[in-house]
Amino acid sequence: MKKYTKIKDISNLNETIKEAILLKINPFEFQDLGKHKTLVMLFFNASLRTRLSTEKAAKNLGMDVMVLNVNDAWQLEFEDGTVMYANTSEHIKEAAQVISQYADIIAVRAFPALTDKAKDQSEYILKSFEKFATVPIVNMESATAHPLQALADAITITELAEKPKPKVVLSWAPHPKALPQAVANSFVEMMRNLEVDFTITHPEGYELDKNITKETPINYNQKEALKDADFVYVKNWSNFNDYGKVLNRDENWMMTKDKLGNAKFMHCLPVRRNIVVEDAVLDSENSVVIKQANNRTYAAQIVLKQILEGLL
Amino acid sequence: MKKYTKIKDISNLNETIKEAILLKINPFEFQDLGKHKTLVMLFFNASLRTRLSTEKAAKNLGMDVMVLNVNDAWQLEFEDGTVMYANTSEHIKEAAQVISQYADIIAVRAFPALTDKAKDQSEYILKSFEKFATVPIVNMESATAHPLQALADAITITELAEKPKPKVVLSWAPHPKALPQAVANSFVEMMRNLEVDFTITHPEGYELDKNITKETPINYNQKEALKDADFVYVKNWSNFNDYGKVLNRDENWMMTKDKLGNAKFMHCLPVRRNIVVEDAVLDSENSVVIKQANNRTYAAQIVLKQILEGLL
Amino acid sequence: MKKYTKIKDISNLNETIKEAILLKINPFEFQDLGKHKTLVMLFFNASLRTRLSTEKAAKNLGMDVMVLNVNDAWQLEFEDGTVMYANTSEHIKEAAQVISQYADIIAVRAFPALTDKAKDQSEYILKSFEKFATVPIVNMESATAHPLQALADAITITELAEKPKPKVVLSWAPHPKALPQAVANSFVEMMRNLEVDFTITHPEGYELDKNITKETPINYNQKEALKDADFVYVKNWSNFNDYGKVLNRDENWMMTKDKLGNAKFMHCLPVRRNIVVEDAVLDSENSVVIKQANNRTYAAQIVLKQILEGLL
Repeated sequence: MKKYTKIKDISNLNETIKEAILLKINPFEFQDLGKHKTLVMLFFNASLRTRLSTEKAAKNLGMDVMVLNVNDAWQLEFEDGTVMYANTSEHIKEAAQVISQYADIIAVRAFPALTDKAKDQSEYILKSFEKFATVPIVNMESATAHPLQALADAITITELAEKPKPKVVLSWAPHPKALPQAVANSFVEMMRNLEVDFTITHPEGYELDKNITKETPINYNQKEALKDADFVYVKNWSNFNDYGKVLNRDENWMMTKDKLGNAKFMHCLPVRRNIVVEDAVLDSENSVVIKQANNRTYAAQIVLKQILEGLL
Repeated sequence: MKKYTKIKDISNLNETIKEAILLKINPFEFQDLGKHKTLVMLFFNASLRTRLSTEKAAKNLGMDVMVLNVNDAWQLEFEDGTVMYANTSEHIKEAAQVISQYADIIAVRAFPALTDKAKDQSEYILKSFEKFATVPIVNMESATAHPLQALADAITITELAEKPKPKVVLSWAPHPKALPQAVANSFVEMMRNLEVDFTITHPEGYELDKNITKETPINYNQKEALKDADFVYVKNWSNFNDYGKVLNRDENWMMTKDKLGNAKFMHCLPVRRNIVVEDAVLDSENSVVIKQANNRTYAAQIVLKQILEGLL
Repeated sequence: MKKYTKIKDISNLNETIKEAILLKINPFEFQDLGKHKTLVMLFFNASLRTRLSTEKAAKNLGMDVMVLNVNDAWQLEFEDGTVMYANTSEHIKEAAQVISQYADIIAVRAFPALTDKAKDQSEYILKSFEKFATVPIVNMESATAHPLQALADAITITELAEKPKPKVVLSWAPHPKALPQAVANSFVEMMRNLEVDFTITHPEGYELDKNITKETPINYNQKEALKDADFVYVKNWSNFNDYGKVLNRDENWMMTKDKLGNAKFMHCLPVRRNIVVEDAVLDSENSVVIKQANNRTYAAQIVLKQILEGLL
């Protein structure tokens, strides 16, 4: 693997998922692979799971890790040709090249601002790192994608599926704040590549990017969509068409124990209790969110392992 | 040891103190014990000594360490059953379980707000971690206790005592800001478990929690209390009865070289010079605050060692 | 080496530069030297290169590293004898002694405030650490000096010089904000110790400290100064006489491809594009800023190596 900025960077998905699951048996088996290799983790935004699981994954592989909150460095400029008279002190051209000399792999988290659709869709932060860095880039959640989360989700579904081709439903949920589409996008893309029966349900008008959902069935009737589901992935995203707006806070879209039935409940976390999903779901045996979060370590570890192998 | 949230978690105090002192001879002797074990350190508040000494202690034992300022992650919710519509993004139920999967031990620092006595006394942050985490918890100073500091204090007194059953005095000092009772509480509790002659002196009305001080003699006359003292531990705390208030700024309670006499001066640091204690004390041979701070490493190390042994 | 707070702490500059270059062949050759040794890095200010390169250098040598933003600890007091009633919680006397017990080497970054010349020139932060710490201090940029940068600059010039005694020009550049003189000061001092033909060019009135520039030729005519230059180091600094003021924003002082000619372009980074230097320079083969930044690792590593050797 040359980088992991999007799901398609994985060449053999099923094999990768199996290998990730095998890593759990002995997480330290490949400690020599990362010896004298450094992962630099750059955060433009808050992180708990991604920060800890990715750092742990790297250390499981014997890597050194340096974590930098970009706020502790210099405000970066991403526009080409700009006269840097305002707030930005350093251009990504220099920053990415420089960091590449201190790192064998660079991992970046950079959320969208959700105010300028074209700018967010351009993925200018992630793409700039890809363009100017001279080492592999790992996406720790960008404006439009969260492929490490999606890989952890795929590992979780693969581990817990009780039948071939389980039914998986992505169900929109309300949220007080405007959230990115990144997690939903990557989950959709991942499901389209797994052997699952996949449906999306959300209020009318809350369609995700058609270039990502493509032929995936969309059902505006949540109850119908959830019927006979094996896995229900609940997630809020702000409106994609009326970009970044919170147009719907309808509590009826909250996931309840009643709606969930016997399905397994998934969420990337953090989750707002009794807004996105009621306590009764999260506190039940049906919730697999903690296992999902655990799989973040092995998703990151298999990605770093494959990238390190590519560096040999 | 299964955890270290309070002094009573130490089963054999005298033995533990002796072992801690022995660690100084070869701090790296038990490097295999922490191999492939991870300490996650979570900070809700500022830290210098606790941060550096605990991280160092863990590394001395061969552990990996991940440090996370909670501000760099998500604002946590601690109330049960709440509808998370406001500022909190993640419930401690998820956070503690999730972090437990990335950590073999979790250390937490969470100061009191000093505005709601019942809430602070409930130790809801520390207790929530204890309740929901699935790995041992270490208290790096909670609302009401600082047991790692108290253990370092006990090590210091044990090392420096020049006679059996030395006289130890805890002497309140003025301070411009409202400070927690945590350090004083844990010191009192620790002294009640050591072979020392222990007295507390503070202005009338500045009584600590009676459930902690119990039968400890309290003398409102500082001069009398300090008579023939071998160790004088100076510390401010805000009022416990009129909770969190600064009711007294009387400079006469500042520790001076004159008052101290031949006793050894102790303080947990940070200390405000010429408010809590005059320069002449801190800059004299009688001050053992630097040695005390050094013992933070070995207090943390013996605690982590005993917890790691409990994990075997 | 007992410490590295200024260039003169290097006893044999040419030998040290050569050794630094040799470190690149096998950066991990001296991993045993740092085993069980801890570098504590303290940041009062923002950092990208210094943070990552110094941490990496220490790890290359097998050291443990603990990074602390001083904002995450306590506000420090530096005045002697002060009554600490205001904002500062801890005196440098305690802080430096305490941290020395957790560290084998302490590295400090502390920029000048640029409002009080005498205070900045006193280097009270760096000097206080030197005075009260009991372990070697490394300067990661202080009020008036950036000797790790200057050493990286010397390595870069030594590596890339195509003839003996190359002509080196330090050329002032405009900048919207008031910047320290530290980088320029250390570069000047370093150049005075290298076998180079060295000239400074800046607008009249922008003289650096005469105690540093001494007999170095100063030419107010940039074009004349740049003639036949082999290396041009471009850097803004705020006015030293009318201290900390931005008295000149003349765009004509910006470095252009035309002015640079065949010389190699140097800058410590971060650099504001099209203010300090035009894109055409930074994006050309003549720019060696990325190589310079890479040499930060080896400058830090040779310094830490020599200090570690001094600890044996």
